[in-house]
Amino acid sequence: MAGSTLGTIFKITTWGESHGKALGVVIDGCPAGLPLEESDIQKYLDRRKPGTSSVTTPRKEDDSVEILSGVFEGRTTGTPISMIVRNTSQISKDYSEIASYYRPGHADYTFDQKYGFRDYRGGGRSSGRETVGRVAAGAVALKILKQIGVEILAYTRSIGPVEADMSRFDRDAVLSTPTAMPDRAANEAAVKYLEEIRHSTDSVGGCMECIVEGLPAGIGDPVFEKLDAGLAKAIMSIGAVKAVEIGDGTQVSARKGSENNDGFCAKDGRITKTSNHAGGILGGISDGDTVLVRAYVKPTPSIYLTQQTVDRQGQSIRINIKGRHDPVIVPRAAVVMECMTALTVLDAMMVNMSARMDSLENFYGKKLLRD
Amino acid sequence: MAGSTLGTIFKITTWGESHGKALGVVIDGCPAGLPLEESDIQKYLDRRKPGTSSVTTPRKEDDSVEILSGVFEGRTTGTPISMIVRNTSQISKDYSEIASYYRPGHADYTFDQKYGFRDYRGGGRSSGRETVGRVAAGAVALKILKQIGVEILAYTRSIGPVEADMSRFDRDAVLSTPTAMPDRAANEAAVKYLEEIRHSTDSVGGCMECIVEGLPAGIGDPVFEKLDAGLAKAIMSIGAVKAVEIGDGTQVSARKGSENNDGFCAKDGRITKTSNHAGGILGGISDGDTVLVRAYVKPTPSIYLTQQTVDRQGQSIRINIKGRHDPVIVPRAAVVMECMTALTVLDAMMVNMSARMDSLENFYGKKLLRD
Amino acid sequence: MAGSTLGTIFKITTWGESHGKALGVVIDGCPAGLPLEESDIQKYLDRRKPGTSSVTTPRKEDDSVEILSGVFEGRTTGTPISMIVRNTSQISKDYSEIASYYRPGHADYTFDQKYGFRDYRGGGRSSGRETVGRVAAGAVALKILKQIGVEILAYTRSIGPVEADMSRFDRDAVLSTPTAMPDRAANEAAVKYLEEIRHSTDSVGGCMECIVEGLPAGIGDPVFEKLDAGLAKAIMSIGAVKAVEIGDGTQVSARKGSENNDGFCAKDGRITKTSNHAGGILGGISDGDTVLVRAYVKPTPSIYLTQQTVDRQGQSIRINIKGRHDPVIVPRAAVVMECMTALTVLDAMMVNMSARMDSLENFYGKKLLRD
Amino acid sequence: MAGSTLGTIFKITTWGESHGKALGVVIDGCPAGLPLEESDIQKYLDRRKPGTSSVTTPRKEDDSVEILSGVFEGRTTGTPISMIVRNTSQISKDYSEIASYYRPGHADYTFDQKYGFRDYRGGGRSSGRETVGRVAAGAVALKILKQIGVEILAYTRSIGPVEADMSRFDRDAVLSTPTAMPDRAANEAAVKYLEEIRHSTDSVGGCMECIVEGLPAGIGDPVFEKLDAGLAKAIMSIGAVKAVEIGDGTQVSARKGSENNDGFCAKDGRITKTSNHAGGILGGISDGDTVLVRAYVKPTPSIYLTQQTVDRQGQSIRINIKGRHDPVIVPRAAVVMECMTALTVLDAMMVNMSARMDSLENFYGKKLLRD
Repeated sequence: MAGSTLGTIFKITTWGESHGKALGVVIDGCPAGLPLEESDIQKYLDRRKPGTSSVTTPRKEDDSVEILSGVFEGRTTGTPISMIVRNTSQISKDYSEIASYYRPGHADYTFDQKYGFRDYRGGGRSSGRETVGRVAAGAVALKILKQIGVEILAYTRSIGPVEADMSRFDRDAVLSTPTAMPDRAANEAAVKYLEEIRHSTDSVGGCMECIVEGLPAGIGDPVFEKLDAGLAKAIMSIGAVKAVEIGDGTQVSARKGSENNDGFCAKDGRITKTSNHAGGILGGISDGDTVLVRAYVKPTPSIYLTQQTVDRQGQSIRINIKGRHDPVIVPRAAVVMECMTALTVLDAMMVNMSARMDSLENFYGKKLLRD
Repeated sequence: MAGSTLGTIFKITTWGESHGKALGVVIDGCPAGLPLEESDIQKYLDRRKPGTSSVTTPRKEDDSVEILSGVFEGRTTGTPISMIVRNTSQISKDYSEIASYYRPGHADYTFDQKYGFRDYRGGGRSSGRETVGRVAAGAVALKILKQIGVEILAYTRSIGPVEADMSRFDRDAVLSTPTAMPDRAANEAAVKYLEEIRHSTDSVGGCMECIVEGLPAGIGDPVFEKLDAGLAKAIMSIGAVKAVEIGDGTQVSARKGSENNDGFCAKDGRITKTSNHAGGILGGISDGDTVLVRAYVKPTPSIYLTQQTVDRQGQSIRINIKGRHDPVIVPRAAVVMECMTALTVLDAMMVNMSARMDSLENFYGKKLLRD
Repeated sequence: MAGSTLGTIFKITTWGESHGKALGVVIDGCPAGLPLEESDIQKYLDRRKPGTSSVTTPRKEDDSVEILSGVFEGRTTGTPISMIVRNTSQISKDYSEIASYYRPGHADYTFDQKYGFRDYRGGGRSSGRETVGRVAAGAVALKILKQIGVEILAYTRSIGPVEADMSRFDRDAVLSTPTAMPDRAANEAAVKYLEEIRHSTDSVGGCMECIVEGLPAGIGDPVFEKLDAGLAKAIMSIGAVKAVEIGDGTQVSARKGSENNDGFCAKDGRITKTSNHAGGILGGISDGDTVLVRAYVKPTPSIYLTQQTVDRQGQSIRINIKGRHDPVIVPRAAVVMECMTALTVLDAMMVNMSARMDSLENFYGKKLLRD
Repeated sequence: MAGSTLGTIFKITTWGESHGKALGVVIDGCPAGLPLEESDIQKYLDRRKPGTSSVTTPRKEDDSVEILSGVFEGRTTGTPISMIVRNTSQISKDYSEIASYYRPGHADYTFDQKYGFRDYRGGGRSSGRETVGRVAAGAVALKILKQIGVEILAYTRSIGPVEADMSRFDRDAVLSTPTAMPDRAANEAAVKYLEEIRHSTDSVGGCMECIVEGLPAGIGDPVFEKLDAGLAKAIMSIGAVKAVEIGDGTQVSARKGSENNDGFCAKDGRITKTSNHAGGILGGISDGDTVLVRAYVKPTPSIYLTQQTVDRQGQSIRINIKGRHDPVIVPRAAVVMECMTALTVLDAMMVNMSARMDSLENFYGKKLLRD
């Protein structure tokens, strides 16, 4: 198991290395009958694509997706959807230096320890390019969710010291600014800050946030398959994420119960909550409120400054890594977070369909017990 | 799927409700030949047991474990280990009030929405008593890990505003103080603080931390089955946990790469790191350093203060919950965190055994390729 | 993994040894709202129970089931259902002889090779008693299936040379004769034959058959999770089964396509087939016709006759196994086959509920695509 | 779940339709360090490829495999191996007729019932071409197994009434005759028989057999993951297989225990058996002897003769299917059986590596228990 498969019913398997021939994903368990074409996928790949702005990355990758199976006459058939993105922009450069040592903050050392050797070209499987398959699959999940009323959006909450002011929340800004911040003023400040970081040949971390709206109450399973547990795994599995919070997250540890409990109340004939400290999940099951997840991303480990490390022979050396790096990855990682959230939520919704006898009876027809 | 099964090779399935006949767990995939007796399990159950101190809980539960299968002549046989803890102390009290409304911060509402009705006695399956099975299974995992050199310890980092000073780290204090803090001075301050909380009939949250020592490099799989992703899921699945951090966690988001990268260096012929901001995991795979995980726990939702909620008919009401509650659950949850960490780490170590061809060849014998 | 868990949504985990304290099963994923009490389970356990007739077994086991969790106020709650059967009739006899050698046809040798040692008392985990948990879980699956119109029956098709004449098919005979044959004349002949086998201190094999009626078309998944593949695994996993057939089974290999194809035809406004050589499954998916599965069972390996074997030191010896044995296990295995079929079919039906977009839209509500 | 993923550690996911752009497979969990190139795969694809002989199929498909990921500098890296075979020979013919009705013996009707519509071009996902991915993955498993001393071979046992005489077993004949029979005389008779079948525009079934040599004792898990249960599932999942036997299979049902038990004996210091009725598996675990599996294949459902069926509107009609068909598929299915066996055996061997404490201690190092 290399752990490249995720999901119980809506199951995805990603594959591919940074500098291999291609990357891709197979979705097994997509419901039949969904209208689907490559442009549905491409728009999400374009959001994670580098080269769109100098502040995030100066590299250019042309990530063009091809659907190879599972779609017939414009609709999904219920059989596996295989999608591929060819690697076209890898420069056949000299990797012998990078092959010889372990870059700090990267997975070079741990891959070598696990597998005995590694594909050292651009990080291989541990590269951020691995997320191409996640995004392609997530795009399909997002389309299905939208069809059944669930909307998901992830955005940048902060970059280094620059934080978005949520009272100025602007959904359009998320998709149109280079930082994917929902606050245009913060975006400008962050762009300026990132220019400084770039000039200092350093990098910086940040925080991203994802909201799920329209999710009915009852999604997620008690015990190990709690909705928040699934989200924590899916989002922590994005490279560089070092913390995941649900609702008010770390802040709850310093609170009293009387401050933290969300009361219930009746409103327009529906049950709702007077606050949402819980982030839309109680006991691992959605409560009908907005689900809110936050993830903290470490600074890109690739920096130009001189660093201390060891070579493959275990000798201490000092290195300067060459190449083009992103000063921050949060804006590109946000769409990955959106996709991982969608995959988790959709799978939980599919699993949930057989949670009650009356659901089975409605689906297959109730019979009188004769026995 | 009610999501009560966890693990790929070392697979556990827990069952039981707060006020049912019993709770328990089945471990499927425990290696044969481990010496095991009930006292190995009991000592961990005793650590999570309430009634040990007035500051955590005034309730008494006598959690006595019985091993029903999978052990023969004092050793595990490789077949399922079934363990059971009978519920003995449930007072057959009147639950009709609690059945009629939804307690804030509890899973009453979401269970009802999911399943159509619920076992309302003491929270049923969403009660903290559900962790009895986790701890029984975790005790076995911890014993195996110790045998192969991996030691795990979880403790209380903070309770409300009172934080342990890690420079005074005292391992013995974790097991002997009522707060499970590794700092005796902080323990005293916390005990005092908890008395105040109890008198105000409120509750408080806290933070717990877990360290894994002796874990070799190479454990965990790239992509979705990263070691940190598995830990995040396992620990977020503990009721009341609202945030999980690896290493420096949320703090990395405000840092620069030059501050956050851990350099490698040679020391006594071994490769080690000059710092451990990463918390022992790079690219989802252990790096041989101490693995550090932190979890933030919300205040116990059961409080005596008047609260706003709705009844099952959806009418707004005000309630005062009766009964005995814990002012804080962190000290008891820490041993659950230790167990969930052990289950995750052990399963990853077992999966890792077939990651390389040379491992298969050593195990089964290498043959010359004839073809 | 000891492989004691089966199913994707309706997931069962069995545990227990022949001569341990108890045996049992945990069902995780049972839909909420099913009326369930111990007598629903007990009647199936009674069908597999030995001691009901001298022709099958002279041993007496009192298999009394207790439900420990997952049922509240007479209905399933959606949480794990734990069921236990205490072992009460084990005679504390001397097992030192059986511990010292490998019985032919049993799993003694292979368990020792795999695990390094074994629970030798009565076969331990490889005993037929392991099926207690299967039957308890299967009883629940059968009750759910009946509620949604699916009926399953397994019976003895042949014992040694005595075969049931299916033109005399009598459903009542299955439940009331000692051989579980659907033909009373064949039952009488088989009873007589079994008396001879018993007197010769030998044993005999047989064939059992299972029919599924009322199963809608569309159940099962293409490729690896074909309904027939799932049935083959579930039924081959019953100890002593050496062959599994679907529909006409082995006979199709000598046929021509023109003989074997089942034509489709319209009948009363429904599509049906002109024959059922396929056994109700096409391309791994149910076609709405009766599903028919057959399994061939080897003679009970425990016989009194002198046999050639080796001891644990690898020395050839000749043995005479003492104790009470069943001359045939088919009548008791038939109910296990019925249960394994039910578990497989129900799980496939639950997985199938999310196979189409219109099913998701009906369940969660269709929304207009805004994007 | 469309059920296109198989395996616990060595996990494969296949995708692709008969007349889509391509077919393929992703292997997740292949051990790192295996020398692998496309020619290792191609030779197995060539064995299943049609067009090699007029007796099996007159169609030509050029199944050329490309490895897209997971191999670096000639060795597997431990990350997913994605393999693709482009569909090149699909004639863009008119499928409107086939789209309008349900072919007898095919999955047309059941796919429509399950998914609401289907890719009707050449059978889509239910076509025999779906096995391309299985064979590509199986080739990798076979190479690994060979490296650790396990050899697998599948061949044609019978075609219609023509059966191979196993006393003339000739391994070379399997790979060089058009029927894949291990008996050249039977091959000649079968070729002649198939010419007659072709002229009568009919088809015929057959039987195939697979042997596993060199498998150590101890592989497979008790209960549901028995080695024979896994083989039964894997092989029954091959389209057209209607029965699976282990060892003496159906014949055991008419035998006595004294005839069927295999005695153990000491030979050259090793424990072996005096016969192999069991087919190398006892209690679901390999016993060190040759594993023998047999599968019965129905006649190709595509025949030119007039057949009774219904159209999509449910009206009875009579049809004559056009196109080129295989009179028998057994010779091509044998290599698929070989691959499915390899995938099952390898996965069981990988899972088995952590079955014992001493294995973990050897791998990770034994520590003294301090507690």
